[in-house]
Amino acid sequence: MTAKQIYLAGPEVFLPDAREIGARKKMLCEEFGFVGLYPLDNGLAAAPGETADEKIYAANLALMREADAGVFNLSPFRGVNADPGTAFELGFFGALGKPVFAYTNAAAPLFDRVAASHGVHGAPGGDFCDASGLLIENFGNADNLMLDGALKAQGRRIVRPDASSLPGLGDLTGFMACLRQARLHFGF
Amino acid sequence: MTAKQIYLAGPEVFLPDAREIGARKKMLCEEFGFVGLYPLDNGLAAAPGETADEKIYAANLALMREADAGVFNLSPFRGVNADPGTAFELGFFGALGKPVFAYTNAAAPLFDRVAASHGVHGAPGGDFCDASGLLIENFGNADNLMLDGALKAQGRRIVRPDASSLPGLGDLTGFMACLRQARLHFGF
Repeated sequence: MTAKQIYLAGPEVFLPDAREIGARKKMLCEEFGFVGLYPLDNGLAAAPGETADEKIYAANLALMREADAGVFNLSPFRGVNADPGTAFELGFFGALGKPVFAYTNAAAPLFDRVAASHGVHGAPGGDFCDASGLLIENFGNADNLMLDGALKAQGRRIVRPDASSLPGLGDLTGFMACLRQARLHFGF
Repeated sequence: MTAKQIYLAGPEVFLPDAREIGARKKMLCEEFGFVGLYPLDNGLAAAPGETADEKIYAANLALMREADAGVFNLSPFRGVNADPGTAFELGFFGALGKPVFAYTNAAAPLFDRVAASHGVHGAPGGDFCDASGLLIENFGNADNLMLDGALKAQGRRIVRPDASSLPGLGDLTGFMACLRQARLHFGF
């Protein structure tokens, strides 16, 4: 059997040690019997008339279409929410119906994170809003319900760390939990 | 010809006047010859064993699959980036190959917004990072390159306001520009 290919999505591509983390993720994939597809592995020579960002976009799309599954790092990025590029890619996989696995390195649910950083007030109908009057989703989810929903629709959850732990953006504990889920999913 | 249906994505569902904005968006769609599909129009009675957020997720997915196109409000939400739920939905449309139109109510590109709120420093290779050492994308885009890329791949751009204007999250100037683009796209 050819090894299943897993697309490795997440904002760690913005970390100074992005390539090292990618190499570690790919090595872990191999240990679990998978092949990891990491965005930064793309050759990035832009075609004539194509800008660098368009080239990266096209290369990532090609990797996503090639992958059998995706593992998504939905840790908060520059704020309370997941990186929108990673969210985009989760939606892309959702539409293709491919298996998705996800983790976050934030222990607290979205509601608590927003309340802590943007304030919390009661709103009509038993709802809650932040100090700007924006509704705060209160479903106990790790992030926006569309992100958690993509996992729940496949019978899974976004993997979260223990409340006591404070893993950094590049911590791979949750990533390994996702690989174990993926192995169960693919039946080996 | 049956009117084309447009999915109306954006974080205005979190505004106190979410339903009013939705009604205005749908009315504008009608004026432009479209039918607007707004997430909050979903009947939200949860099926047995289904939680409210799973119900909303499933209903939004059904609307997206039904839609002929999507218009996305990619304005920054609780930080420098677009709402991850909206980004998820843009990725969903991208995977399905449906036409997408997008606007933001932030005039400044992502790079400038991150630099203003998270700091900016030179990094190796001519790159720039924020005060946390996280790389800042520097392509002149409105947001993460995957979001802009989805538009560029279809020959469009994320519509941005004039540098002098400061429209709120619910401002619909960019939305109307997207409807004009959609009318051109569908040839009427």
